[in-house]
Amino acid sequence: MNDKMIRYILGWILTVEAGLLLLSCLVAVIYRERAGFSLLGTALLCAVIGGCLTIKKPEDNGIYSKEGFVIVALSWIVMSCLGAIPFVLGGAIPSYVDALFETVSGFSTTGASILSDVESLPKSLLFWRSFTHWIGGMGVLVFVMAVIPLSGGTSIFLMRAESPGPSVEKLVPGAKKTAFILYAMYIAITLVEMVVLLIGRMPVFDSIVLTLGTAGTGGFGIRNDSLGSYTDFQQIVVTVFMILFGVNFNAYYLLYRRKWKEALRSVEVRTYFLIILTAVILIAVNARGFFDSAFEAVKHSAFQVASVITTTGYSTVDFDLWPAFSKTILVVLMFVGACAGSTGGGMKVSRFILLFKSMGKELDYVIHPRNIRKVAMDGKSVEHAVMRSVNVYLVAYGLVFVVSLLLISLENLDMTTNFTAVSATLNNIGPGLSLVGPTGNFAMFSPFSKLVLIFDMLAGRLELFPMLILLSRNTWRRR
Amino acid sequence: MNDKMIRYILGWILTVEAGLLLLSCLVAVIYRERAGFSLLGTALLCAVIGGCLTIKKPEDNGIYSKEGFVIVALSWIVMSCLGAIPFVLGGAIPSYVDALFETVSGFSTTGASILSDVESLPKSLLFWRSFTHWIGGMGVLVFVMAVIPLSGGTSIFLMRAESPGPSVEKLVPGAKKTAFILYAMYIAITLVEMVVLLIGRMPVFDSIVLTLGTAGTGGFGIRNDSLGSYTDFQQIVVTVFMILFGVNFNAYYLLYRRKWKEALRSVEVRTYFLIILTAVILIAVNARGFFDSAFEAVKHSAFQVASVITTTGYSTVDFDLWPAFSKTILVVLMFVGACAGSTGGGMKVSRFILLFKSMGKELDYVIHPRNIRKVAMDGKSVEHAVMRSVNVYLVAYGLVFVVSLLLISLENLDMTTNFTAVSATLNNIGPGLSLVGPTGNFAMFSPFSKLVLIFDMLAGRLELFPMLILLSRNTWRRR
Repeated sequence: MNDKMIRYILGWILTVEAGLLLLSCLVAVIYRERAGFSLLGTALLCAVIGGCLTIKKPEDNGIYSKEGFVIVALSWIVMSCLGAIPFVLGGAIPSYVDALFETVSGFSTTGASILSDVESLPKSLLFWRSFTHWIGGMGVLVFVMAVIPLSGGTSIFLMRAESPGPSVEKLVPGAKKTAFILYAMYIAITLVEMVVLLIGRMPVFDSIVLTLGTAGTGGFGIRNDSLGSYTDFQQIVVTVFMILFGVNFNAYYLLYRRKWKEALRSVEVRTYFLIILTAVILIAVNARGFFDSAFEAVKHSAFQVASVITTTGYSTVDFDLWPAFSKTILVVLMFVGACAGSTGGGMKVSRFILLFKSMGKELDYVIHPRNIRKVAMDGKSVEHAVMRSVNVYLVAYGLVFVVSLLLISLENLDMTTNFTAVSATLNNIGPGLSLVGPTGNFAMFSPFSKLVLIFDMLAGRLELFPMLILLSRNTWRRR
Repeated sequence: MNDKMIRYILGWILTVEAGLLLLSCLVAVIYRERAGFSLLGTALLCAVIGGCLTIKKPEDNGIYSKEGFVIVALSWIVMSCLGAIPFVLGGAIPSYVDALFETVSGFSTTGASILSDVESLPKSLLFWRSFTHWIGGMGVLVFVMAVIPLSGGTSIFLMRAESPGPSVEKLVPGAKKTAFILYAMYIAITLVEMVVLLIGRMPVFDSIVLTLGTAGTGGFGIRNDSLGSYTDFQQIVVTVFMILFGVNFNAYYLLYRRKWKEALRSVEVRTYFLIILTAVILIAVNARGFFDSAFEAVKHSAFQVASVITTTGYSTVDFDLWPAFSKTILVVLMFVGACAGSTGGGMKVSRFILLFKSMGKELDYVIHPRNIRKVAMDGKSVEHAVMRSVNVYLVAYGLVFVVSLLLISLENLDMTTNFTAVSATLNNIGPGLSLVGPTGNFAMFSPFSKLVLIFDMLAGRLELFPMLILLSRNTWRRR
């Protein structure tokens, strides 16, 4: 284990976090809020610790698979622990566990909240809260890689450990350049949404903050009814951009390179759109009676479907009141999630495609034993290692899910609350059903349950392996 | 596809069913019940059809993988369709779909019922109902193989398709002899339970019928409160035998052959007992407040745990009232299921062991990439094909589960009812929670939902592949 390199990168993470906190300070200056001091104080703390850790660059900068996972897990934990401080210092969230929950929910792009009255928070803290979504969406290590000269060809291990999906494709040779291109596209689409919302007459602060939440597929709102009180146009814009941020960014790169055909041929992206279309139609028909017009039914159905499949978690209505069929579709979509290589969470469409293809292959093999073929996707045959990691992901997912469910059921809340609380955090969505539904929040859980759900949010965003490897005894055993 | 052989074996299945129905007629004669005529009529019908189909033995008796699965799927469907007739003819269950539900629930050893007042049924029909559990538990094709000379070395494909678990080990060379030994052991243990219950002063009819339900891990009771009104001794005896019938029968064969060490070394059996012990203790502590004494708490906890993990489905109390933690443990056990090669349902302990081992191996591989090892169990390395089929089973399971959940949620019942109704049928348990809890039943579902759940019961008992292969277009395509 390359301890020095772990410390060095953690140092850079904190330095970057200091910068992000200073940006939030700017908001405090604009709105003349006292909360700026807590943001500033935390920024200084991050800068000092970060500075100390990065003074000396380690001679051996080799990072391998194991270090990649450990660095990613530790970075997210440390970043969250420090990022929670401004909420506590300002008195906005008195309990540290609650503040940590809110911060992890932010970075992991979950959007689950313990706040019952979000409108009472200072604007600078609201900005910081939503800004964590944005940086967490594309990944903080990807950001660090794009900005800081880590050198060495081994940073692909960091990227692999942080990026969502069964396999990571470099857009261009070189992880650093890939990271840079990813962030460039990310910033571009984010700016477009902001401008369109401004054109739609959304207040400046709202459009900035809601865009950050859409881009990271996070879901923190700044009004108590989430997006319920915005205009039709604004809701539709957010619907469209939620869906766009759930698309594999490789497709955007292909579009940018004018490889139209390749971009449109991606099985994952096509399946993703097909699932959305089907779900919107089914729910609009099933929940038609809840709305005055067919337009309203489709609009709200599309918003909620987009919000859940991309694991954003905004809402325009209380879908907990909808019929069981519609609710069940939404719960299923919670698990499906968005495309790999997007900012969305969940298990990812491509994993399901691979799983179903391997099922079909196996059934085929029973029927025609002499007909042996490999699973293929987008015209390429899928490596055995990828298939194996998808299967193992599924098992690890089930394990984390069941253990979390058992632990939080100790509180004796109802089954639907427990089940959807774990689903909503592990899949980085935000709201679930029943007590944690769109009109509820996570405040009533005990600190113990909150810690379990904090683990789930991090494990979900990092796709399990980093957290499991961090906790594995083998990782820390000296040979 | 060897159509002639499929017809021939289906004929034998019906002939055997005629015999089983005649046995139930005997009960009608003893108790002088009119229901005997419907049983007799159906027996004759089965005999006539069966006789016609078995007149001529096909010259080509080759059965391969594909035929094995198709024969098993068709056998269970045909057997259930005819087995439902006595309930309708006698007027005990007026609706045919309800009667089919009850019969499939019997053969698949589920034990889910649409009857609200089971005590009003004639004794001969109660016997037939529980007898289907017994024959379904060990498998009707296994029975046919043990009794009827099918000849050819290919009958192992039938056995593989019907027997539960990720891989089928022949106890002795030759499928026919293995089938015979399995049934001999099955009958022996069944008789022991019956005798012990009689010694415990249970009425003769009750001890016969409840033993049949325990042996097949079915769960049909003959009193409206399931086993709530029996004595402590009788409940404890049933607890012990439920657990025993959930053990891999290979272990019994090893014990019979006095290979004590090998029998006790089985990882699956040891894990199975460990899970039971842990669950019993956790629930007894968690639900302690619901009982007058620690003895009562342990007794009821053990009964319910044994009933759920073996997927029997008897109950002594309404566990739907227990705290959320206890209920969640029971729901988790629903999925775990019993050992492979037992009469129990669920996903099977050995599958979970294999899945967790492969997860551990994969994590280990990330940490020490040079350390490549294979998954091993009971000292033998697990074949790649077995591992693959376990993974595919998991995916197929998830698919069937989600589709079923969506279909029955169209009825707009509550989420807990829907979720546990599918869990309870697909895992062949019987009762779930909420409306389908221990004091409820499945009568309120629409015929459409009942058909979905009927499919789930069959798919669960046959471990998905036979039903999926029966429905696959590839199976029926002529080359």
